[in-house]
Amino acid sequence: MSKISIIMGSQSDLETVQEAINILKEFKVAFQVRVLSAHRTPKELAEYVEKAPKKGTKVFIAAAGGAAALAGVVASHTTLPVIGIPIESKSLKGLDSLLSTVQMPAGIPVACLAIGKAGARNAALLALQILGINERKIQTQLVAYRRQMRDKIKNIKLKI
Amino acid sequence: MSKISIIMGSQSDLETVQEAINILKEFKVAFQVRVLSAHRTPKELAEYVEKAPKKGTKVFIAAAGGAAALAGVVASHTTLPVIGIPIESKSLKGLDSLLSTVQMPAGIPVACLAIGKAGARNAALLALQILGINERKIQTQLVAYRRQMRDKIKNIKLKI
Amino acid sequence: MSKISIIMGSQSDLETVQEAINILKEFKVAFQVRVLSAHRTPKELAEYVEKAPKKGTKVFIAAAGGAAALAGVVASHTTLPVIGIPIESKSLKGLDSLLSTVQMPAGIPVACLAIGKAGARNAALLALQILGINERKIQTQLVAYRRQMRDKIKNIKLKI
Amino acid sequence: MSKISIIMGSQSDLETVQEAINILKEFKVAFQVRVLSAHRTPKELAEYVEKAPKKGTKVFIAAAGGAAALAGVVASHTTLPVIGIPIESKSLKGLDSLLSTVQMPAGIPVACLAIGKAGARNAALLALQILGINERKIQTQLVAYRRQMRDKIKNIKLKI
Amino acid sequence: MSKISIIMGSQSDLETVQEAINILKEFKVAFQVRVLSAHRTPKELAEYVEKAPKKGTKVFIAAAGGAAALAGVVASHTTLPVIGIPIESKSLKGLDSLLSTVQMPAGIPVACLAIGKAGARNAALLALQILGINERKIQTQLVAYRRQMRDKIKNIKLKI
Amino acid sequence: MSKISIIMGSQSDLETVQEAINILKEFKVAFQVRVLSAHRTPKELAEYVEKAPKKGTKVFIAAAGGAAALAGVVASHTTLPVIGIPIESKSLKGLDSLLSTVQMPAGIPVACLAIGKAGARNAALLALQILGINERKIQTQLVAYRRQMRDKIKNIKLKI
Amino acid sequence: MSKISIIMGSQSDLETVQEAINILKEFKVAFQVRVLSAHRTPKELAEYVEKAPKKGTKVFIAAAGGAAALAGVVASHTTLPVIGIPIESKSLKGLDSLLSTVQMPAGIPVACLAIGKAGARNAALLALQILGINERKIQTQLVAYRRQMRDKIKNIKLKI
Amino acid sequence: MSKISIIMGSQSDLETVQEAINILKEFKVAFQVRVLSAHRTPKELAEYVEKAPKKGTKVFIAAAGGAAALAGVVASHTTLPVIGIPIESKSLKGLDSLLSTVQMPAGIPVACLAIGKAGARNAALLALQILGINERKIQTQLVAYRRQMRDKIKNIKLKI
Repeated sequence: MSKISIIMGSQSDLETVQEAINILKEFKVAFQVRVLSAHRTPKELAEYVEKAPKKGTKVFIAAAGGAAALAGVVASHTTLPVIGIPIESKSLKGLDSLLSTVQMPAGIPVACLAIGKAGARNAALLALQILGINERKIQTQLVAYRRQMRDKIKNIKLKI
Repeated sequence: MSKISIIMGSQSDLETVQEAINILKEFKVAFQVRVLSAHRTPKELAEYVEKAPKKGTKVFIAAAGGAAALAGVVASHTTLPVIGIPIESKSLKGLDSLLSTVQMPAGIPVACLAIGKAGARNAALLALQILGINERKIQTQLVAYRRQMRDKIKNIKLKI
Repeated sequence: MSKISIIMGSQSDLETVQEAINILKEFKVAFQVRVLSAHRTPKELAEYVEKAPKKGTKVFIAAAGGAAALAGVVASHTTLPVIGIPIESKSLKGLDSLLSTVQMPAGIPVACLAIGKAGARNAALLALQILGINERKIQTQLVAYRRQMRDKIKNIKLKI
Repeated sequence: MSKISIIMGSQSDLETVQEAINILKEFKVAFQVRVLSAHRTPKELAEYVEKAPKKGTKVFIAAAGGAAALAGVVASHTTLPVIGIPIESKSLKGLDSLLSTVQMPAGIPVACLAIGKAGARNAALLALQILGINERKIQTQLVAYRRQMRDKIKNIKLKI
Repeated sequence: MSKISIIMGSQSDLETVQEAINILKEFKVAFQVRVLSAHRTPKELAEYVEKAPKKGTKVFIAAAGGAAALAGVVASHTTLPVIGIPIESKSLKGLDSLLSTVQMPAGIPVACLAIGKAGARNAALLALQILGINERKIQTQLVAYRRQMRDKIKNIKLKI
Repeated sequence: MSKISIIMGSQSDLETVQEAINILKEFKVAFQVRVLSAHRTPKELAEYVEKAPKKGTKVFIAAAGGAAALAGVVASHTTLPVIGIPIESKSLKGLDSLLSTVQMPAGIPVACLAIGKAGARNAALLALQILGINERKIQTQLVAYRRQMRDKIKNIKLKI
Repeated sequence: MSKISIIMGSQSDLETVQEAINILKEFKVAFQVRVLSAHRTPKELAEYVEKAPKKGTKVFIAAAGGAAALAGVVASHTTLPVIGIPIESKSLKGLDSLLSTVQMPAGIPVACLAIGKAGARNAALLALQILGINERKIQTQLVAYRRQMRDKIKNIKLKI
Repeated sequence: MSKISIIMGSQSDLETVQEAINILKEFKVAFQVRVLSAHRTPKELAEYVEKAPKKGTKVFIAAAGGAAALAGVVASHTTLPVIGIPIESKSLKGLDSLLSTVQMPAGIPVACLAIGKAGARNAALLALQILGINERKIQTQLVAYRRQMRDKIKNIKLKI
């Protein structure tokens, strides 16, 4: 039973998405990952999104680049929270991916994060924050993770 | 039997789409118009696109604004030509609509036109050009339409 | 006990934020609203965010324009989910607000929605989706809301 | 008799255009390729476009970068469909090429695709979709091509 | 014998171009104005540009908006200086017009000015500066015009 | 007693910030450098900014990238001048950093400089200019520095 | 003896600059205002900037729009701090003014603020912060001003 | 006596400007080149521009990047034609340089060309076109140059 379902539009997105995967592994929260394209496999995508809740999914993460319809299409098939990661595209550097993911019409929200790897990491953390509302263990892990980040900064020795 | 199917993502897009409709009326080519949203009515949209060819559709025109997934989603359900009209959005003035429509991944083409009313008019003309390849009558009308545009320019009297 | 805390950076943001408020009222979910600025009231903001969980807050919504630090600063003080609404700014039409809200560094996620009123409405819906994971009633309301949107589109009669 | 005429504005565009060529070769549809510039060889371009229909051309593909007037100028000389590929430019990464190709005035449509190689591949597919309306064989090939894309995605094994 | 030929792509550009006309009238330099479109009247445009030098034209001014090919196409037909005015477009506010006019490929220069009315005024002044190199009278007028601008600023009384 | 306090949001910003440090070393003005993040160490940041004036700080320099809240947050805790350096970000090349730093709401100024290393160097020079108002020695150094720049340019021998 | 010299490039900038003037009046700090253009009155501008320090100027504020060279040119003539206000321009809404003001080369800093009226207000406040380093009275006023802003926010009663 | 004066704002601009120099050498037209900065050597620049006409200058070419005030400042000191080359900048890829060069206020024209090397080549050609109005030899060379470009394109053999 994986609580988080990660979908990416293309295998080449894995390099970015791996950042999210690493965090979920670190937190030991069950997840599954699929390559499913809003444009090339619309039926398989719809079917997957519709069935996922029955298999335990509470939150979706969708990563795509360019005319990044993926997160919006996932959101069109569910009322669970959908988190979007705009993949950095080649020419426009993810500005297209960002606008295609974030500028959703009223009624169908997508929680959009930053372009690229920072966004992927934060997608995992946001999914964990959402689950953490009702799972004390995750909430505790998040507080510890935040503290580690803080301590890491406090311990920096700059060579200037 | 309408050869051209026009889909818009929201009723508010009609003001722009009307420009395409007017041209198709002028050319007396059969068409049909639907409001169907990639995000709010994904199943109805898929079903409509899949059935349309049997009812005569040869070309789709899809108009949407913001994270404008519509044309791409239509294209995901058909191998007929899909023409996209990026609707001018409120804040970003259609830049989001344009990038969401035009930056399609390899494999699923959308023929994108200009933002707003000029794009809508050209969507109709492009659909007619596509049909005109095999329909001499439409081709003849297009040539006449082009000549009228030219003559209109030649007859301008400027007051300077 | 309000589960959703809405913060806006300036009173002038209310016109946009009202869209979120209306949805929460429609869903009859308790919320509270504050004007608190990341730049003008940093201490009051920090204090409010830190105390809110004890008073029932599960999700924050933060709306700001321009160099919109608000959502990120809220997120810096909590590990609860933070939803950002980029307010349309005067000169750059919200592009500044969007980038300031969405481009968060790895570690501190903000769930960013669209610029302006569509984003505000979706912020409320996303907050409800998050709560709905564990509250069947909200989940049921969301499904009904989605169905109403769909039916509204299906019942449109276009005058062309 | 080549049904598709590909024109590029500069020999350096071939790297991108090759993506379109490869697809047309794969589909075994006759095409021809020319380097003709809207700015450096306007007469040769006009002459080529005007004569092409007599030699079998049904669809034009035009690729250019920067102030990319090529597709629009091709369109000014024909009422056949013209497909534009915005080449990625050095400084502005194809944003200039995209806007110069897509923002055509009402009356003279250009079917614009994505910047760069994805756009080139889709230009070929769109040309084939247009021809496929009346050529069952191409239509069948397109359906098979789409299925292959889908199956390729379904067979991906991710290493995460 | 008009030394300056002004071409605009559409009658609606006159409001902007009038700013250039007013300056040329003020300087009492002969000019002529035409509406000729790169896209709708390519032949008439080519013919006009090719014949203009024999009728006295030394400098061209071309004004167009959107995918503004006009100045570049004029330049493709002449080795006389061509000055481009990017007209403010509806959705993208002239950014498309600017990039389409200024980003010319090496070999075919267009002297691009600012978007809109300031650009139109400066187009006239630049044409006069070019002519002024060899016409002392115009050079003298330009120096006087510059001095008037300066004096106007020096005489401003601010009410603060 | 360091008169200038430099804060950067992440250790990776040091490469850019080093340009500022080098200038301050060259001018032999005391400064201190900290890594403190608006998002990951908000309390430590607030505390540092509030205490700094007592330890001699007259001017703050804050460098951050992406949704660069740092300079604004520093400014929210002090009425001393705050100088912002927008760090070049990976995808959007610092456009996000720039807008997040410069588009501050009325009431809380941040003195924003150019993206990246030029901005870092100028941040140091601006801090020195501010101190120089009341420290003749620094003012003299600045005049000399300016003269050296000038002389360096005048002594360039171009090989063309 | 005015400590702050405000220069605007055009009389039409006064509407924006008035925001800065109002704040300086409120703080009862002496200032002077001039219309001087980098492009139309370069000599008068140079002369004014060079003489101003002798008449008491400690800080310059320069406001200009479009290709806004003004602040940079002021900075080229002084080693006193120069604060730039990018005026909102007609077509590009101040993006041109912002980039022309902020992207200064290393060596000649300009302290850039936000586009338009918020920037103008902050320009005045930044100038006061700079003077406040050595004038306790201004520093006290700034602290009071900040407190008033805070209290104003705390006293807001929202009608939702 | 050099008819064309080329000014660049920084020695690092030479790589781009060399493209212009090569064309002027090819045409055997006398020119001179200087490094002079609007910001670092304003007086030397003003003096150079004012004296140049007496030494034969008919046309100025100015190349600069970032907040590229150079061409505008040259134009402020002369009524001869000034041609601007926006140098590609590091972070914003010349968008800043372009807007700073092209968006000149009414009254002081700068003839702006494309960002980078294409712009540099065209700057030289535009200068030659301007001189060519009254020098038949240059005009003949330009026609030959144009023909060579055309023939080069016509002789391309593509390997596809």
